[in-house]
Amino acid sequence: MARTWGNFFLSLLDYKTEKFVIAKNKKVGVLFRLFQLGLIGYLIGWVFLWKKGYQETEEAIQSSVITKLKGVDLTNSSHYGLQLWGAEDYVIPPQGERIFFIVTNYVVTPNQRLGYCPESPKVPDGLCNYDNECVEGETVIAGHGVKAGRCINDTGTCEIHAWCPVEHGQTTSEPLLSNAENFTIYVKNFIKFPKFAFSKSNVLPTTNSTYLKTCRYDKDHHPYCPIFLVGDVINWTGYSFQDLATKGGSIGVGIEWNCDLDKDESQCNPEYSFTRLDSSKNSQNSVTSGYNFRFARYYNDAAGQPYRILFKVYGIRFDILVNGKAGRFSIIPTVINIGSGLALMGAGVFVCDMILLYMMSKSSFYRETKFEAVTK
Amino acid sequence: MARTWGNFFLSLLDYKTEKFVIAKNKKVGVLFRLFQLGLIGYLIGWVFLWKKGYQETEEAIQSSVITKLKGVDLTNSSHYGLQLWGAEDYVIPPQGERIFFIVTNYVVTPNQRLGYCPESPKVPDGLCNYDNECVEGETVIAGHGVKAGRCINDTGTCEIHAWCPVEHGQTTSEPLLSNAENFTIYVKNFIKFPKFAFSKSNVLPTTNSTYLKTCRYDKDHHPYCPIFLVGDVINWTGYSFQDLATKGGSIGVGIEWNCDLDKDESQCNPEYSFTRLDSSKNSQNSVTSGYNFRFARYYNDAAGQPYRILFKVYGIRFDILVNGKAGRFSIIPTVINIGSGLALMGAGVFVCDMILLYMMSKSSFYRETKFEAVTK
Amino acid sequence: MARTWGNFFLSLLDYKTEKFVIAKNKKVGVLFRLFQLGLIGYLIGWVFLWKKGYQETEEAIQSSVITKLKGVDLTNSSHYGLQLWGAEDYVIPPQGERIFFIVTNYVVTPNQRLGYCPESPKVPDGLCNYDNECVEGETVIAGHGVKAGRCINDTGTCEIHAWCPVEHGQTTSEPLLSNAENFTIYVKNFIKFPKFAFSKSNVLPTTNSTYLKTCRYDKDHHPYCPIFLVGDVINWTGYSFQDLATKGGSIGVGIEWNCDLDKDESQCNPEYSFTRLDSSKNSQNSVTSGYNFRFARYYNDAAGQPYRILFKVYGIRFDILVNGKAGRFSIIPTVINIGSGLALMGAGVFVCDMILLYMMSKSSFYRETKFEAVTK
Repeated sequence: MARTWGNFFLSLLDYKTEKFVIAKNKKVGVLFRLFQLGLIGYLIGWVFLWKKGYQETEEAIQSSVITKLKGVDLTNSSHYGLQLWGAEDYVIPPQGERIFFIVTNYVVTPNQRLGYCPESPKVPDGLCNYDNECVEGETVIAGHGVKAGRCINDTGTCEIHAWCPVEHGQTTSEPLLSNAENFTIYVKNFIKFPKFAFSKSNVLPTTNSTYLKTCRYDKDHHPYCPIFLVGDVINWTGYSFQDLATKGGSIGVGIEWNCDLDKDESQCNPEYSFTRLDSSKNSQNSVTSGYNFRFARYYNDAAGQPYRILFKVYGIRFDILVNGKAGRFSIIPTVINIGSGLALMGAGVFVCDMILLYMMSKSSFYRETKFEAVTK
Repeated sequence: MARTWGNFFLSLLDYKTEKFVIAKNKKVGVLFRLFQLGLIGYLIGWVFLWKKGYQETEEAIQSSVITKLKGVDLTNSSHYGLQLWGAEDYVIPPQGERIFFIVTNYVVTPNQRLGYCPESPKVPDGLCNYDNECVEGETVIAGHGVKAGRCINDTGTCEIHAWCPVEHGQTTSEPLLSNAENFTIYVKNFIKFPKFAFSKSNVLPTTNSTYLKTCRYDKDHHPYCPIFLVGDVINWTGYSFQDLATKGGSIGVGIEWNCDLDKDESQCNPEYSFTRLDSSKNSQNSVTSGYNFRFARYYNDAAGQPYRILFKVYGIRFDILVNGKAGRFSIIPTVINIGSGLALMGAGVFVCDMILLYMMSKSSFYRETKFEAVTK
Repeated sequence: MARTWGNFFLSLLDYKTEKFVIAKNKKVGVLFRLFQLGLIGYLIGWVFLWKKGYQETEEAIQSSVITKLKGVDLTNSSHYGLQLWGAEDYVIPPQGERIFFIVTNYVVTPNQRLGYCPESPKVPDGLCNYDNECVEGETVIAGHGVKAGRCINDTGTCEIHAWCPVEHGQTTSEPLLSNAENFTIYVKNFIKFPKFAFSKSNVLPTTNSTYLKTCRYDKDHHPYCPIFLVGDVINWTGYSFQDLATKGGSIGVGIEWNCDLDKDESQCNPEYSFTRLDSSKNSQNSVTSGYNFRFARYYNDAAGQPYRILFKVYGIRFDILVNGKAGRFSIIPTVINIGSGLALMGAGVFVCDMILLYMMSKSSFYRETKFEAVTK
C-alpha cells in the first residue's frame, strides 16, 4: 500500500504534456498565428503600453482648496454713490473657499424699513384690480412680502407688508465693477491619493515666493503658476468678461492630476482647464444662465429702529473642480490582464478547430485523428 | 542550415491541435455540458446583459451645484417683534451653495453689550455657591464668557464677563417661520464624467423657462422639474415639517446620475432621492438629531459703543449629494470578462477529468488511454 | 439524415478529454508543480485573503459633515479694546460646515471711512517720489484703493481713494485668542455607500448623550468619540498651537471608513487622522503656509454716513476630508480573479513545454511523441 501511495506521489512529479496533432494545414495555421499575434499586440500595445493595464488605479482623490483674491475697484452707482470694493467685499464668502463668487455688478436698494408699500409690478402674483385679490396675510408668490388686504391703484399691485420700498432698481448694461477683469485669483490645492499615501500641492516645491508675486498662469509659458487673472480665465472659457459680468455666470476651473506613480513625483503635475458651467454656446437653452443673489446689511437708526441696505449682486461664481487619477504597478491587474488575454487564446483555438474539423475538405480525416474514440 | 531554419518557420505555420480522447461516458459528458451552459449563461446573462460587463465605468463624477430659494415669511417673536424673512435672510449662506440652511425657528437675544452679568443657570460649569468657585479669568466650560470672580446669589451662578444679558430665550413649540413649508428650492446641477468627457445639467435641454416658472418636482408627474417645495421634500423623507422645523434637522437630497453612454444622451437623466441625515426612525438614538447655530449682527450706538443682536437659529440643512456612474463600451473589461470566464472552463475540465479518471468504474481504463506513458 | 443529426447531438454528450503524454522528466515536473503551487498560493493568499479579491469595491463614498464648536475667549487688542469671542464670531462660516475657520489672531482697523489717504508703504506699487507716478484713476496693484494723482511726501506713497485709514496694524507675536486651544469641535459625519445602500454615522449607535457631553477624542482611549480638542488636533499633526495660531494654518482632519460589508455593520468604524495641509516639515518651501483673510462690519453713523471696521483674521482652517472604501462579496471579481489566475497556468505550461521540447537532452524524442504528424 505504502508503495502505491509512493508511486502516486512520484507520478505527480511526472510532467504531463498535452498531445498535439500536427495538421499540416497552412490556412488554419496562418489564421491561428495571426490571431495570436493580434492578441499579443493588443495585450502589449493597447493594454500595457497605452492603457497601463499593469497599474492599480485610484480615482478617489482627496482635495483641499484655498483661494485668495487681490484687487480693488471703485464703483459709482446712481442709488448708492461711490463705493470701494476690496476683496473683503466682492469675494463671497470672504474666507477663501473652493467655491467663491466675485461681485461684478449690483443693484442697491438703500434704506429699506419694515412697513407697508406696493408690491413690485414685476411680480405676477402681486398684480390686482380690486382689494379682494389681495387677501390679507397671504404671501405673494415669488414676491417680497405678505399681502395687506388693499389694492393700490397707482401701481396696480397689492399693498404688502415688507421691507419697503421694495427693490426696483435696474441692472446697468455695463458691469459696475469693470476692473474685476484684473483681479487675481491665487489657488492653493493640496491633493492626496489615500490608497497610495501620495500627496502633493499645486504650488510646486520649486516655486519660490518671488515667482509667486509676479507670475500669471498661462498654458504655454507658466503652466504651473497658481495665480490666475479673472479676465484670462473667462476668455479661456470662450466667453468675454462682458458676457458674464453684467448678468453673472458660473465658471468651472478644473484641476486635473494625472499621476503615474511609477515615474518620479516631479512628473505628477496639475493641469488646468476652464469651462463655463451655466450655459453652452451650442445649446440654445439659456434658462440656466446668469448668476445673482441678494444679501442685506442691517443697521439701527438713532431711535433703535432697524433699516437695511439690500444688495442684489450679479457676478461670477468660480467652482474649482479637482479630479485625478493615480496609477501604480500592482500584481493583481497585471495577472488579470495577462491571464484573461491568454484565456482568450482558447477562443481562437476553438474557432480554428471548428474551421479545421468542419469546414475543410479533409475535415473528416482531421476529426478522426484529433478525436481518438475508445471503447472497451 | 538555412533549410533547417526555413523548415522551422514553416512548421510554425502548421496548425497544431490538441488530441482528444472521446470517453463515451454520458454522465460526465452531460455534467460538462451543463457546466459549460451555466458558464455561458452567467457570462451572457449576468455579466453582459445585467451587469454590463463590457463597459468601462467611471464613478468619479464631477459636480457643481447652484441653488436658489424663493418665498417670504412674516414672523412675530416676543423678544424682537415683527420680522420679515426673505431668502436673503433665511438662506444661510445666501449665495446659493450645494449645502444650505433654511431658518425655520429662532431665538433672539437683542441688545447684548459687553459687560458683566450672571451666567445662564443652564450651563453646569457656571453654577456656584461661593465666590471661590468662580475663579477670575477662568472660562466657563460650554458657557458664555469668562468668570469674573463673584458668585451671584440670585441666580446661583458665577458672574461672567460676556455679551450681556446672556441668551435665555426658549424655543417656541411651533416653528416661527411656519410658511417655510411653501418655500421653493431651485437646484441647478451640472455634472461631468471626466473620463468620458461627458457633461450634462439637471435642467434638461428640453426644459423651457415657462415650465421652470410653474413646475414643482414630483416623482410621478414632473420627474425632471428642478424646483422643489420644502414641505414636499420633508414629507418624502418620511417626516413632517413640524418634526424638523422646531428643533432643526438635516436633509440629504440625492441626485443620482446613472448613465449608459452607449445609449443616447437623452437617456441619461437625474434621479432624486430624499433622506433625513441626522436621525433615523428605526434607531432610538436621538443624540445626533436637530440642527441649530448662532450668529450675531453688530451695531454701534450713537456714542460709538458696540452692541449686538444674537440669533440662535434652528432650521433645516439641505445637503445636495450628487453621485453617479457612467459606463461605456471598452475592449479591456470585455476581454477580461470573456477571458476569465473561458479560463474558468478549465476548472470544469479539471473537475470532470477527476471524476472520469478516479471515480468511475472504468477509471483505470480511461487513465491508460488519456495518459500515454512514453519511455525511451 | 435524422439519424445523423441524432448521432451528432448524442456525440455532443460524449465527454472529450485531452490526451496527455507523460514525460517522465522529474525536473520539468517539479518545476511545473512549483509554478502551480506558487500560483495557487498567490491566488488564495494574496488575492483572496489579503486583497479580498472576491469583493466588489465602492470608493465613491457619499458624505455629509456637520460641525459644532464650543468655547469662548476674551481678547484685548490695542486698537479695539476688549472683545469677547464666542463660536458665533470665531467660527467662519458659523453654520457648521465641513470646512471651517477658527480665528486665533487678528488685526483690527476700526473706523474706516471712504475718502483720501496715503497708501500703505508695504505695497510696492504705491511707492512714489513724484505726482506723475500716481496716475489718477489707476488701481494700486495689490493695494487698497485707486490712485488720486498725488504723491504724499510724508509717507512716500501715492494718495489713494480708499477706506481710510488703510490697514496698518501689526500682527502680535502671540495669538490673541490664546484660549482657542481649548475650544472643542464636535464632528457629525454621515456616510453612504450608494452601490451597497449602506449608510452609517460616526456618532455610533451605542453612543449616549452623557458620553457625548464629556468625552474627548483620543486614539487609544476614545477612538470613537466625535469631539476633538483644537489643541490636541494641532499637536497630532506634529505642530504646536503656537506654530499655527499666530500666522494661521490649514489642517486636514481625515475620516476614513474602511468597511468590509461581509462582516457585521458594527465592524465598520471611522478612523481619524490629522495632517497639516499648508506646510510640511521636510520641505523648506514655506510660501504656501499661513492662512488669513479679511472681512468688514459696516455701520452708519448718526448722519447716515457709512464707516466700517476691518478685521484681518489669522486662524486655523479645518478641512474635514472623508474618504472610504467598502467591499462586499460579488461573483464577478471572484470569477475574474480565479479565471485569470487559472489562465496564467497556461503560461506555465507553455514555459515547461518549451524547456521539455527544446532544452532537454531527450527533447527531440519528446517532440516526436507530443506532436503526432498526420498526413493523408
